[in-house]
Amino acid sequence: MAKGASLSGFPEWLPEERVVEQRAIDTLRRIFELNGFLGIETRAVEQGSSLLKKGETSKEIYLLSRLQEVGQENDTPVEDRLGLHFDLTVPLSRYVVEHSGDVVFPFKRWQIQKVWRGERPQEGRFREFIQADIDVVGNGDLPSHYEVELPLVMVSALEALREFGLPKATVHANNRKLSEGFYRGLGLTDVEGVLREIDKLDKIGADEVSKLLVSECGASEAQASACLELAGLSAATGEELGERFRELCARHGIEESSEAYQLANEGLATLAMIVDEAARIRPGAVVADLKIARGLDYYTGSVYETFLDGAASLGSICSGGRYDNLATQGKKKYPGVGLSIGLSRLVSYMLHTAGAKASRQSPAAVLVAVWNEDERSRANRIAAMLRSRGIATDVAPTAAKLGKQIKYADRLGIPYVWFPGQDGADDEVKNIVSGDQSKADAETWTPDERVALQTVEYGER
Amino acid sequence: MAKGASLSGFPEWLPEERVVEQRAIDTLRRIFELNGFLGIETRAVEQGSSLLKKGETSKEIYLLSRLQEVGQENDTPVEDRLGLHFDLTVPLSRYVVEHSGDVVFPFKRWQIQKVWRGERPQEGRFREFIQADIDVVGNGDLPSHYEVELPLVMVSALEALREFGLPKATVHANNRKLSEGFYRGLGLTDVEGVLREIDKLDKIGADEVSKLLVSECGASEAQASACLELAGLSAATGEELGERFRELCARHGIEESSEAYQLANEGLATLAMIVDEAARIRPGAVVADLKIARGLDYYTGSVYETFLDGAASLGSICSGGRYDNLATQGKKKYPGVGLSIGLSRLVSYMLHTAGAKASRQSPAAVLVAVWNEDERSRANRIAAMLRSRGIATDVAPTAAKLGKQIKYADRLGIPYVWFPGQDGADDEVKNIVSGDQSKADAETWTPDERVALQTVEYGER
Repeated sequence: MAKGASLSGFPEWLPEERVVEQRAIDTLRRIFELNGFLGIETRAVEQGSSLLKKGETSKEIYLLSRLQEVGQENDTPVEDRLGLHFDLTVPLSRYVVEHSGDVVFPFKRWQIQKVWRGERPQEGRFREFIQADIDVVGNGDLPSHYEVELPLVMVSALEALREFGLPKATVHANNRKLSEGFYRGLGLTDVEGVLREIDKLDKIGADEVSKLLVSECGASEAQASACLELAGLSAATGEELGERFRELCARHGIEESSEAYQLANEGLATLAMIVDEAARIRPGAVVADLKIARGLDYYTGSVYETFLDGAASLGSICSGGRYDNLATQGKKKYPGVGLSIGLSRLVSYMLHTAGAKASRQSPAAVLVAVWNEDERSRANRIAAMLRSRGIATDVAPTAAKLGKQIKYADRLGIPYVWFPGQDGADDEVKNIVSGDQSKADAETWTPDERVALQTVEYGER
Repeated sequence: MAKGASLSGFPEWLPEERVVEQRAIDTLRRIFELNGFLGIETRAVEQGSSLLKKGETSKEIYLLSRLQEVGQENDTPVEDRLGLHFDLTVPLSRYVVEHSGDVVFPFKRWQIQKVWRGERPQEGRFREFIQADIDVVGNGDLPSHYEVELPLVMVSALEALREFGLPKATVHANNRKLSEGFYRGLGLTDVEGVLREIDKLDKIGADEVSKLLVSECGASEAQASACLELAGLSAATGEELGERFRELCARHGIEESSEAYQLANEGLATLAMIVDEAARIRPGAVVADLKIARGLDYYTGSVYETFLDGAASLGSICSGGRYDNLATQGKKKYPGVGLSIGLSRLVSYMLHTAGAKASRQSPAAVLVAVWNEDERSRANRIAAMLRSRGIATDVAPTAAKLGKQIKYADRLGIPYVWFPGQDGADDEVKNIVSGDQSKADAETWTPDERVALQTVEYGER
């Protein structure tokens, strides 16, 4: 975080850092649009009643009150108050229902916005941060092929972010139905509880999770051990996944004719499809990982988490899943599947771990020098000419000594300084990095493209 | 506003409308960077104490409370609570003071973000809207040439927005010192009060303002009439402005040796400089308008409002001024000058008055058809190839009848439909607007650039 971040949990970047964030946003938008997603922006506020629907996260809501209402806030029930959105999925659900007559289904949308969570700030947790989401929402139904296509779009997006120092990303996929069917087949009934404990595997290890399954979820030692076996199952292909899963079920006495097995098998089919299709399109990008649980309770099928090579401590940087019951209107359902990148955390990684930085602070490629204040108007006209030709240009703040003007350019990283010709002489332009200086006409001069571009670089410097 | 905007004052656009807003933001950013401004983004929240400093606007603040704190909000004084920023100037002041050791002065920054105001929603007023700001902040002092350069940048920016249907914009400039000196020269002491009443001229007319000056500000009929004379003064050049102002002072007995005159004369010199330099760089873009007052009390010199030809009812769409005392740190001052575009209101105008609209809903140029679900993987590979070549591509949601797939493309405005070749035949691509169809290879085919581009158009259609 910028060293001056004066409010814990609310990151703020210096201008040369913001360039990295801005370029990352531009890159994500480009990839999302390349994949045919439509951009929307929703209001930052939602009704308390919408925000409270979404279970666990709800305690992190920031509620609003107008200054005039101070002292009377509690006359209004929380459900009727406004709060800041804590993700972009709840707003999407509302948006889709409101505009169901205006959008084309399946509705593929991207959205990059700030979200707010009033949680206690801790290492790597922000109270205000940018999320970058893609979702596809169907009207009534939604084909399962989107459950592999969306993680693949995110893989492309994260791949494009490697330009800013991000390591390779791998999506880990699982399926709620598979887990639920298996747990029920074992005779466990507290499915939510088991998922919640399994979700802790990476943090606390198998032994502790096993104890919790016994103490919190009413599992026997054998049942707990079977849950851990499922969580540890991996496979390179859909076929292999199927074989291993069937072997596991057989060994734990889950019969293929049972309802529980049927449910698990539905999830298995989708997960196998995901693994195989992803391998065809982008080998190694998506793996089956049966310990992925996802805390949020609105996922009903596929769930995803994404990890960066060598950055396990970041946790999942892009998560999501399929949700069939989030958006409803009377009897009508709008099932969706989506993933969300926690962008601020990634930008923090780019800046502070990968060492990403703008090649210079100022977007300007040229600084026009000013010999004396009476000639400022001429400098302004030169700058206007360069800008009209698409060359970003600044003008010296004061008619200080030339060395001081060059130092201003240098501090901002502006590579060219333009000297208006005096006493009828031609103008000249100097590349203050190389020292090259030559005559130049603002109507025709063109900078070296590599020098003129403000770029982002990363790594040791 | 999108017909479904479900919360009064919180605008939300349909995807094809959002394209217009997004392009307007892109355009402003491009112009700001072309002029050498550095982009920053500040957190959405500020301390209550910062927000309350800024006088009149403060009553429009939205305060935050965490859900867990409901019922205990008022244990914390408003000054120590967090609130949403209502403009981008207060955050900039804080940012500059916090990062004074890290940024290069004069600090030229652009910032495009949402702001929130809890005011009663009314025609054309939003509670959540996007502002687009540029400011230059000096360390200790700030040369006055920025007072003409910044409005000229905004003129360029607004000129670039004409692409989306905005009429020509004219900046009206005045100077607080000029007005204050003149009022004091007349013997009036309630300068703030007089400015406030003069600010109402366009709304309620000269007669009513005159009455208010007498009843509210202790002015005599003659003093009120002199104030109105000043407000009505106009001039094409700095020289003419000076002559008319001196004539007015002489007629009302304001002596050139008086302190009040000296103050007015300082303002006059800056305003004359602005008018003359603007005329040299961009004739007709900036005019002196001595009735411009600006409600906010932190302006200390130049003030600006901007009006669109034929859209007087919109009021000022880009306002600002010079503020010498907003950001301070001990004895240190960071004087600034800046202007702010109320972007959401402009986008609303573009959409609903100028008829601006995206040429199509989807960014995709191509839809790959799917003959049957078994061939989806092949369609995905074709799409991946096109995307890798920078061609935005979508894939048909289902292997429905071809007519239905083409209808999906048509509804989204996707101009090309790609037919994967069957039984070893070549792929073909059809422009569904012109009907042209030809053989195509995803590795080499290039769309007609004009057809492939998602653009914004405006006007009757």
